[in-house]
Amino acid sequence: MKRCVVLLSGGLDSATVAAIMAAEGFSLCGLAFDYGQRHRVELERARTLAETMEFEEFRVVKIDLGSFGGSALTDFSLNVPKAAAESEGIPLTYVPARNTIFLSYALALAEVKKAYDIALGVNAVDYSGYPDCRPEYLAAFQAMANLATREGVEGRPVRIRAPLIDLKKSEIIARGLELGVDYSLTSSCYDPLPGGFGCGECDSCRIRGAAFATLGLCDPALAN
Amino acid sequence: MKRCVVLLSGGLDSATVAAIMAAEGFSLCGLAFDYGQRHRVELERARTLAETMEFEEFRVVKIDLGSFGGSALTDFSLNVPKAAAESEGIPLTYVPARNTIFLSYALALAEVKKAYDIALGVNAVDYSGYPDCRPEYLAAFQAMANLATREGVEGRPVRIRAPLIDLKKSEIIARGLELGVDYSLTSSCYDPLPGGFGCGECDSCRIRGAAFATLGLCDPALAN
Repeated sequence: MKRCVVLLSGGLDSATVAAIMAAEGFSLCGLAFDYGQRHRVELERARTLAETMEFEEFRVVKIDLGSFGGSALTDFSLNVPKAAAESEGIPLTYVPARNTIFLSYALALAEVKKAYDIALGVNAVDYSGYPDCRPEYLAAFQAMANLATREGVEGRPVRIRAPLIDLKKSEIIARGLELGVDYSLTSSCYDPLPGGFGCGECDSCRIRGAAFATLGLCDPALAN
Repeated sequence: MKRCVVLLSGGLDSATVAAIMAAEGFSLCGLAFDYGQRHRVELERARTLAETMEFEEFRVVKIDLGSFGGSALTDFSLNVPKAAAESEGIPLTYVPARNTIFLSYALALAEVKKAYDIALGVNAVDYSGYPDCRPEYLAAFQAMANLATREGVEGRPVRIRAPLIDLKKSEIIARGLELGVDYSLTSSCYDPLPGGFGCGECDSCRIRGAAFATLGLCDPALAN
């Protein structure tokens, strides 16, 4: 059976990616990262999603990225911005080289599992702020990956799959709902409330909340 | 002062790289990895080298790569090959995506430290077996890196430096001796003896032993 390594953050996007790849017939190997993030509820949600969606495998890799500092997501001395900061260049919530590190682990797991697809949930909403969410970055990662590994060198290339790349948030949600994703299980909040509910105020909550509203829905991850 | 992140394994090659970059006027930030390797003496040697060579900073990052399996270096159920296996394609000691993961962490540290050079000790001897030691791989990593980070996007690109890439092992040692590297502090062995001495039999020991012999020297990392 063909396998896909999915970067599963526990958020809305990666849950949708998993559903899309499963619908394409892939057996899923989920990979999540414990990198000292404040929003640790996402790891519980990632595990729950992997179980619910019947992944073949789910691994949490603990990484030391937090010790490097330099981001509001991993540095507890910085405050998470609540204002509309995402339009003002690269946001404070940027983590240095995060997707590069995550994809590198995914590449290692893909090689060991003989998976030739690696999927992640980056999308257009992220472009403006995060350099490592752009299509040209993903293409460069794929080119590098196929020079890096035994599998690539021997003619079995890996593909980096970003099926949400051109979708608006509301389109992502619509697609996921078609495929049966239970978005109440997801957490995308940068600063969740007790119980894991979204704060409704951070960039991530506001973006997904607006997208659900576009579809005439309430975000099921928010407290009522 | 200009800074360079150096991947410091505790081996002969990375010690030489550090000396070369220091001679170019860089302040050095060393990065070593605890990835479940059997030859753990290398981490002690990396720390000693960083202290002796007056690095600005030295970090050991613990990574979970060992749990992925697939290599004699991280999988204790496999035996380390003692024969001349390096000429028969990709060796058993290959670790999936290892240099990609290591360089990704180096990229994160470089961005945080505002270092625009990342140096590592790959060289021609490794080409035949390890896909991620080839110049085309390093060029692809650099291209990807400069699409990945805030620094790269804002016009301050990072360079991946591999100053040993075209050198024979004996040339590496000759250069290091000129620069005052104390090779008795290094450990390159895949399966070291008690006390951290090289076994003299594994591929790595045989290659460096032959190179010292070419120069009319004995490898100071072997027991007498």
